[in-house]
Amino acid sequence: MDFEYSAKTKDLMDRVSAFMDQHVYPNEHRFEAEVADGDRWQPTKVIEELKAKAKEAGLWNLFLPESARGAGLTNLEYAPLCEIMGRVAWAPEVFNCSAPDTGNMEVLERYGTEEHKKQWLAPLLAGEIRSCFAMTEPDVASSDATNIESSIRRDGDHYVVNGRKWWSSGANDPRCKVFIFMGKTDPGNPNRHAQQSMIIVPRDAAGVTVLRHLPVFGYDDAPHGHGEVLFENVRVPLSNMLLGEGRGFEIAQGRLGPGRIHHCMRLIGLAERALEKMCKRVKSRIAFGKPVAQQTVTLERIAEARIMIDQCRFLVLNAADKMDRYGNKVAAKEIAMIKVAAPNMACKVIDWAIQAHGGGGVSNDFGLAYAYAGARTLRLADGPDEVHRNQIGKLELQRTQ
Amino acid sequence: MDFEYSAKTKDLMDRVSAFMDQHVYPNEHRFEAEVADGDRWQPTKVIEELKAKAKEAGLWNLFLPESARGAGLTNLEYAPLCEIMGRVAWAPEVFNCSAPDTGNMEVLERYGTEEHKKQWLAPLLAGEIRSCFAMTEPDVASSDATNIESSIRRDGDHYVVNGRKWWSSGANDPRCKVFIFMGKTDPGNPNRHAQQSMIIVPRDAAGVTVLRHLPVFGYDDAPHGHGEVLFENVRVPLSNMLLGEGRGFEIAQGRLGPGRIHHCMRLIGLAERALEKMCKRVKSRIAFGKPVAQQTVTLERIAEARIMIDQCRFLVLNAADKMDRYGNKVAAKEIAMIKVAAPNMACKVIDWAIQAHGGGGVSNDFGLAYAYAGARTLRLADGPDEVHRNQIGKLELQRTQ
Amino acid sequence: MDFEYSAKTKDLMDRVSAFMDQHVYPNEHRFEAEVADGDRWQPTKVIEELKAKAKEAGLWNLFLPESARGAGLTNLEYAPLCEIMGRVAWAPEVFNCSAPDTGNMEVLERYGTEEHKKQWLAPLLAGEIRSCFAMTEPDVASSDATNIESSIRRDGDHYVVNGRKWWSSGANDPRCKVFIFMGKTDPGNPNRHAQQSMIIVPRDAAGVTVLRHLPVFGYDDAPHGHGEVLFENVRVPLSNMLLGEGRGFEIAQGRLGPGRIHHCMRLIGLAERALEKMCKRVKSRIAFGKPVAQQTVTLERIAEARIMIDQCRFLVLNAADKMDRYGNKVAAKEIAMIKVAAPNMACKVIDWAIQAHGGGGVSNDFGLAYAYAGARTLRLADGPDEVHRNQIGKLELQRTQ
Amino acid sequence: MDFEYSAKTKDLMDRVSAFMDQHVYPNEHRFEAEVADGDRWQPTKVIEELKAKAKEAGLWNLFLPESARGAGLTNLEYAPLCEIMGRVAWAPEVFNCSAPDTGNMEVLERYGTEEHKKQWLAPLLAGEIRSCFAMTEPDVASSDATNIESSIRRDGDHYVVNGRKWWSSGANDPRCKVFIFMGKTDPGNPNRHAQQSMIIVPRDAAGVTVLRHLPVFGYDDAPHGHGEVLFENVRVPLSNMLLGEGRGFEIAQGRLGPGRIHHCMRLIGLAERALEKMCKRVKSRIAFGKPVAQQTVTLERIAEARIMIDQCRFLVLNAADKMDRYGNKVAAKEIAMIKVAAPNMACKVIDWAIQAHGGGGVSNDFGLAYAYAGARTLRLADGPDEVHRNQIGKLELQRTQ
Repeated sequence: MDFEYSAKTKDLMDRVSAFMDQHVYPNEHRFEAEVADGDRWQPTKVIEELKAKAKEAGLWNLFLPESARGAGLTNLEYAPLCEIMGRVAWAPEVFNCSAPDTGNMEVLERYGTEEHKKQWLAPLLAGEIRSCFAMTEPDVASSDATNIESSIRRDGDHYVVNGRKWWSSGANDPRCKVFIFMGKTDPGNPNRHAQQSMIIVPRDAAGVTVLRHLPVFGYDDAPHGHGEVLFENVRVPLSNMLLGEGRGFEIAQGRLGPGRIHHCMRLIGLAERALEKMCKRVKSRIAFGKPVAQQTVTLERIAEARIMIDQCRFLVLNAADKMDRYGNKVAAKEIAMIKVAAPNMACKVIDWAIQAHGGGGVSNDFGLAYAYAGARTLRLADGPDEVHRNQIGKLELQRTQ
Repeated sequence: MDFEYSAKTKDLMDRVSAFMDQHVYPNEHRFEAEVADGDRWQPTKVIEELKAKAKEAGLWNLFLPESARGAGLTNLEYAPLCEIMGRVAWAPEVFNCSAPDTGNMEVLERYGTEEHKKQWLAPLLAGEIRSCFAMTEPDVASSDATNIESSIRRDGDHYVVNGRKWWSSGANDPRCKVFIFMGKTDPGNPNRHAQQSMIIVPRDAAGVTVLRHLPVFGYDDAPHGHGEVLFENVRVPLSNMLLGEGRGFEIAQGRLGPGRIHHCMRLIGLAERALEKMCKRVKSRIAFGKPVAQQTVTLERIAEARIMIDQCRFLVLNAADKMDRYGNKVAAKEIAMIKVAAPNMACKVIDWAIQAHGGGGVSNDFGLAYAYAGARTLRLADGPDEVHRNQIGKLELQRTQ
Repeated sequence: MDFEYSAKTKDLMDRVSAFMDQHVYPNEHRFEAEVADGDRWQPTKVIEELKAKAKEAGLWNLFLPESARGAGLTNLEYAPLCEIMGRVAWAPEVFNCSAPDTGNMEVLERYGTEEHKKQWLAPLLAGEIRSCFAMTEPDVASSDATNIESSIRRDGDHYVVNGRKWWSSGANDPRCKVFIFMGKTDPGNPNRHAQQSMIIVPRDAAGVTVLRHLPVFGYDDAPHGHGEVLFENVRVPLSNMLLGEGRGFEIAQGRLGPGRIHHCMRLIGLAERALEKMCKRVKSRIAFGKPVAQQTVTLERIAEARIMIDQCRFLVLNAADKMDRYGNKVAAKEIAMIKVAAPNMACKVIDWAIQAHGGGGVSNDFGLAYAYAGARTLRLADGPDEVHRNQIGKLELQRTQ
Repeated sequence: MDFEYSAKTKDLMDRVSAFMDQHVYPNEHRFEAEVADGDRWQPTKVIEELKAKAKEAGLWNLFLPESARGAGLTNLEYAPLCEIMGRVAWAPEVFNCSAPDTGNMEVLERYGTEEHKKQWLAPLLAGEIRSCFAMTEPDVASSDATNIESSIRRDGDHYVVNGRKWWSSGANDPRCKVFIFMGKTDPGNPNRHAQQSMIIVPRDAAGVTVLRHLPVFGYDDAPHGHGEVLFENVRVPLSNMLLGEGRGFEIAQGRLGPGRIHHCMRLIGLAERALEKMCKRVKSRIAFGKPVAQQTVTLERIAEARIMIDQCRFLVLNAADKMDRYGNKVAAKEIAMIKVAAPNMACKVIDWAIQAHGGGGVSNDFGLAYAYAGARTLRLADGPDEVHRNQIGKLELQRTQ
C-alpha cells in the first residue's frame, strides 16, 4: 500500500499541468468569446489549435488502458491527469480525452470488429471526428435500462432502428459522425437483460433528426450540447451490430464503468478548482471589519471541503486500481460508490464556493454556477444516485451473512 | 392563537388561485415562447394582457399594508396570496406584486415626498412603469452595507451620483423609469451607519449606462434581467434625496424587511409547486418493477419536503404577523430567520424534485432547474445566509443572560 | 390566524414558569442526589412533595382536553405549558402530566367503562398510582403493529394474556398498579387491523414479571425506568377488555396521537433549555483569544438552533390546533409530521450544545448527554421516523392527483 | 500508488482477526458480566487472561513505529490491525495497544530518559502497569491548550505540581501507576507556547486524589473510567521533567498525533461493526410485508455507510503513510483531517445502525448506543472538531496564494 503517485505519474502530471498553465487557463476567455460571438454550434478554433499542440506534446489519448492504441496508461495512472484536465470543462477535448468519445472509443476497442475500428475508432483516436452515445429516452425511467423502448428490428440484411433518445451529448456537433445506439432486438425475451443490443448508426444515416438542444440549468453547453434525437426507420447494415444481438447490457456494463470513473476524476479537479477560487476570494474580501477568510465559518467550510475532496480522490483512485487489477466487472461496487460520492462532493464544495463569492457566485464571472450545473447533472447522468446506492446496498448485504 | 386563515383571506386565496388556474398556468408556455421567439428584452404581451385582467378582477397591489393606496391587506393576509403567485416566476408581475417594484413602492410610500409619490409611486401602482433598486456593488462585500463605495456628492442644487452597481434587476426593462440608488453622502462620518443615503435617479438621466445583463446560472431572466449599471456623474436635483442625507440605512432597514418576506412567501409557493411536480412524476414512472412512488426513499423525501415546507410557512406567517403587530424593526429577527430558512428549504425541496425527474429535472422541460437557480440566488440576494445568521445569533445571545 | 398565545394561556405559562423557577430548577440536584444515594428504584421524596404543591397551585392534570376530569384545556392551550415542563425531565410528573400516564389516562377517559374509570382513572388523576403501557415486543418489528405477537385468549369468563413486552416504562415503579396491554384476540382474522385488542392488566396479577430494566444509552432512567416484562398465563376478567375485541388499533390511534404530541411539546422545551445552556456557555469561555460566543461558527449554530426550534414549535402548535378542531384522526398527518420533526430537531440542537460544552457536554454535569439520549430515543419510541415518513409520504401522494 | 495491503500486513490482519474470532468476540458477554457482577472498578480477569494469549501469539505492542521496543510495524502496517481491534471497545488492551497507554508509551519512547524508560516504559510495554494522561482541565477551554492553568513550580530539587484535571482516563485503575501531566512552568513567558511543560507524576505521589468518575452518556466505562483528579502540592523530583521546561507543546504535538490516528483507526473498525450489525438486523426483520433490508431507505443508508467508511479509511491510511514518510509534524494537516472525519463518520454510521435496531438500538443489547457514546466523545477528546477544522482551513489558505 502506497499513497504517493509513481514517478511516471508525477512526470505526466507535471506535463499536463504545465500544458494547462500555458495553453488552457489563458484561453478560457477566448473560448467563451468564440462561443458567444460566432455561430455557437460550430467547433471553436481554440480547441482545434490546442489539440494539435497537445498531440505534439505527447499528451494525447491518455485514457484507454490495456491497448496499444492509447498512451498505454493504467486507469490509476490516468486518474490524476484526468483530474487536472477536469479543472476546465472543455480541456479534456484538447487531450482527446472527453466524454462521450472516450467511452465510445472504449466500446469500439473492446467490442468492435476490425472494420469498426478502422472506420470509426481510428479517426476518433486521431481527433478527426467525434461521436455520440444514444441510450437515455425521455419517455421512460431510463435509470432502469430494461425500460428502454427503442427498437432494432432485423429486416433482411439490415437492421431498422426506431426510437427517441435524449441527452445525446454532441449529437449536433458538425464533427459528430457516429452514434452508438441502444435498443431492443428481442423485446419478448423473458430474460430482460437479453432484450437489448448496441449498434453503430452513422450520423448521416437517413432518418436521424436532432430535434432540439437540451439546456442544463440554462446552459446550452454549446458548441457540444445535448441533443434530443429522433431515429425513424434508420437502416444500417447487419455488420453494424456490436458483439451480437442481445449483448447490449454486457457492453453497457463495459462502457459505463470507464465513462463513470472519468466523470468522477474530472469532478475531483472541478472541486479543487472551486476550492481554490473560494480561498482566493475570501482572502480578498473584508466584511464587518475583517477578512472573510478569518471567519471560523469560512475556515470550517474550507476544512470540510479539503476533507471531502481528499477522501473522494482516494476512493476514485482505489476504484481505478481495482479496475486495473480485477477488471471493470469486479470493480462494479467501487465504481458505483464513486459515482455517488464524487458528484455529491463536488456539488457541496462548489456550493460553498458560490456562497463565498456572493452574487458573483451565481453569475458567469467565476464559472462556479456552471460548474455546479455540471456536477449536479452528474448525479443523474449515467445512472442517478439512487440506482447506484441500491446496487451498493445490495452488494453489501450479500457480503454480510 | 389560531392556525386557520381568516374567511377574508380564504376568499382572496380562492380568487387568486382561480386566476392562476384560468390565466397563468395555461399561459406558461406562451410566456416562454414570447421570450424565446421575439426580442427577449421587450416586455411580453401576455403579461400586459393579464395585468389588465387582474386589475379588473380586483387582484391588484395586494401588497402595501397600512396604506390606502394598496388593497389594504396586512402582511399576514397578503402572505398566502403572495405564496400562490410565487408558484410561477412571472405571475407576481401580473398582480403588480413583483420585485423589486413592491419594495421600491414601499420606500416611496413610507419615505417619499408628495412629489415623489405623484411622479413615481402613482404610475408604479398603476403598473405603467417599473423601477430598479441599485444597491449591491461588484467590487466590495456588499453584504456588509457599510462597504458600499458609490458616492452621492452635493454640487450646488444637485447631487452628483457616481458608482458601479450590479444585480440591478429590471434596469434594462424598457418600462423601467426610475432607480432608487444607495451611496455615500458622508464617507468620512465616524458613524459608519450615517454615511449612506438613498436617492431617486431617473432611468433616463445622463450618465446612466447598463453595461451588461448578469445571468443566474445560465438564465438571463429575460425580459426582466439583472443589470450591471454604471453611474457616471449623474446629476439629480436635491429634492430627489429620500428622507434626508445619512438616512440610507434607516430606509434600507424599512425597505428590505418587506422585500425579504415577499421573497420568502414566494419561495413557499415555489417549493409547493416543485413538490407537486415531484409527486406527479413519481406516480407516473416505473423503475425496477414498481412505481417510483412506492420506494421508501421517495416517500421519505416527500415527507421531509412536506414537513420542511409547512414548518417554514408557519415561520413566514409568524414573521408577517409580527411585522403587522410590532413593525418591521421589532420583527428584524423574525425576518432574518425566514430569510435564512426559506431559500434553504426551497433549494432542498426543488433539488429532490429535480432528482425525481431524472435528466428532465436539469433541463427546462419542468421548470425545476430554473426554480433552483432562483431559490439558490435568494441565499445571497438581500444579504447572504451568513450575515443573517450572525444577526440572529447575536440577538439570541443578548436575549439569554 | 394569530401567532400570539391567548391571555389565558399566557397566564398559565407564567404560573407554570414561576412554579418551575421556584420549585423545580432549584431541586434538580436534590432529585439526582435522591436517586443516586438511596434505593434508586423507589419514588423520590422531592417529586411527591412537589406534586402536592402543584396540585395546590392549581397546576394539575393540565392535559386531557374535552373532559371535565382534567383542567379543561385544549391541546393548543396545553402545548406551551407542556413545553415548559419539558425543560426538566422529571418535571411533568410534578404536574401529573407525565408519560406514559397521560396517554393511559386518555385511553381510560375515552374508551373505558365507568368501572374502569372509577378503579383506575380516578387514582391516576389523583396522582396516587401510576400506570404502564405494554405494547412493543422485542422479537418483532413493532413499528408495524400488525407484527405484535402477544396473545389475549378467551377462556370462560377470563382472558388469558401471554407475551413478552419491552420498553414498558414505569413497569417497576412501586406506584405502578396497572398495565394497558396490546395483544391479539383474533390472530387469524384476514383483516390484520382487527386482530388486536387492548386490555387492562393489573400490575399485581399472577404471571406478570418484570425481567430487567432497559437502559437508554447508559442511563437507567431510575426511578422510572423501562421494563422488559413477561406475561405468562395472566388471567383477567372479561370486563377488563377495552372498547371490545378487535378494536386495539382504533384505541392505539386514539392513544398514540396525544402521547406523541406531548412528547413533541416536551422536546421543544428540552431543546430550548439546551440552547440556553449553550448560549450561557459560549459567553463564558475564551479560546484562541476571544470568547467562543464571537466565533461565527458559534453564531451560525445558535441561529440555526433558533430557527429550527421556532419552526418546529409552530408545527407542533398547529398540530394541537388541528386535533382540537378536527379530532385526532383527521390530524394524523400533522401528528406524524411533528413526531418526525421534533426529535430530530432536538437531537441536532442538543448535539450542538454538547459540542459547545467540550468534554462537559458528554458528562452528566450539564444534563446534555442525558437530554440527547432522551431525544434520540424518541426517534424510535411511538414509531420510528421511517414509519411516520412513509405515512406522511403516502398521504401527500394521495392529496396530489 | 497501491491500494492493496502488503502481504506482511495481510498476514497480520488474518492473525489479529483470528484472535478476535477465537478469543474476543466469544468473551464479550463475559467481560460485561465481570464488570456488572463484581467490583466494577477492578481489572477484569478476562482481559488479563487474553493479554497472556496475545503476547504468546506474538500480537503484542503492535503500535510504536520506529522503535525496537514494539513490533516494528509502521503506522501504515499497524492501521488495519488497530481497526480490527477497534471492533470491540476493550480489545485493544488485550494486545497492549490501548489508549491512553500507547500515547504515553510513545512519549516515553521519544522524549524519556533511559531512567524513565526503565522505570515506566518497560512495565508498560510488558502490560504490567497502566498509565494516565492528565491534560484537560474543567475550568478552561482546554481545546486551546494555552488556556491550561495547572502549575509546575520548581522548589529546590523538586517540582511542585498543582491543578485540577478531568477526563484523565484510567486514573483510578488499580494498575495505573503513573501520570504524564501538563502544566505551566513559566506562566509569564510572552511566548504562550513556551509556558507549558510535561512531567511524570507517580500515581501514588502524595497529594493526588481522584475526585470522581466522569460518565460518558451514562456509561462509566468501568473498569477503566475517566477521572477528575486533584493535584495538591504534589512533589516530584526534577528528573521527572520530560524533555525540558517549556517543551510541553512540542511533546503534545508528538504525543497527540499518534494518539489521534489510533483513535481514528479504531473508529473505522467500530463503524464497520455497526454496519455489519445493521445489515444482519435488517435481513432478519419484516415490516409492512417485506424485509426491512429490501426498503430503498435501508439500501441507501447501507450504501452511504459503505462509502463513508471506505473514504475515511483511505484518509486514515494516507495519514499513516504520511506520518511514516515525513514525520508526525509534517503530517499535522492529514492528522487533523482524520480527527474530524473519522468520529463524524462513525457517529453517522452508528446512528443509522441504532435506527435500524429500533428500541434495541438505544439499549445495551447490541452495543450500539455505547459505540455512539464513544464515537461522539471523540468529536471532543484530543481537540474538538472546530479546533481541527480551523487549523486545516488555515493551512489550506496558506497553500493557495
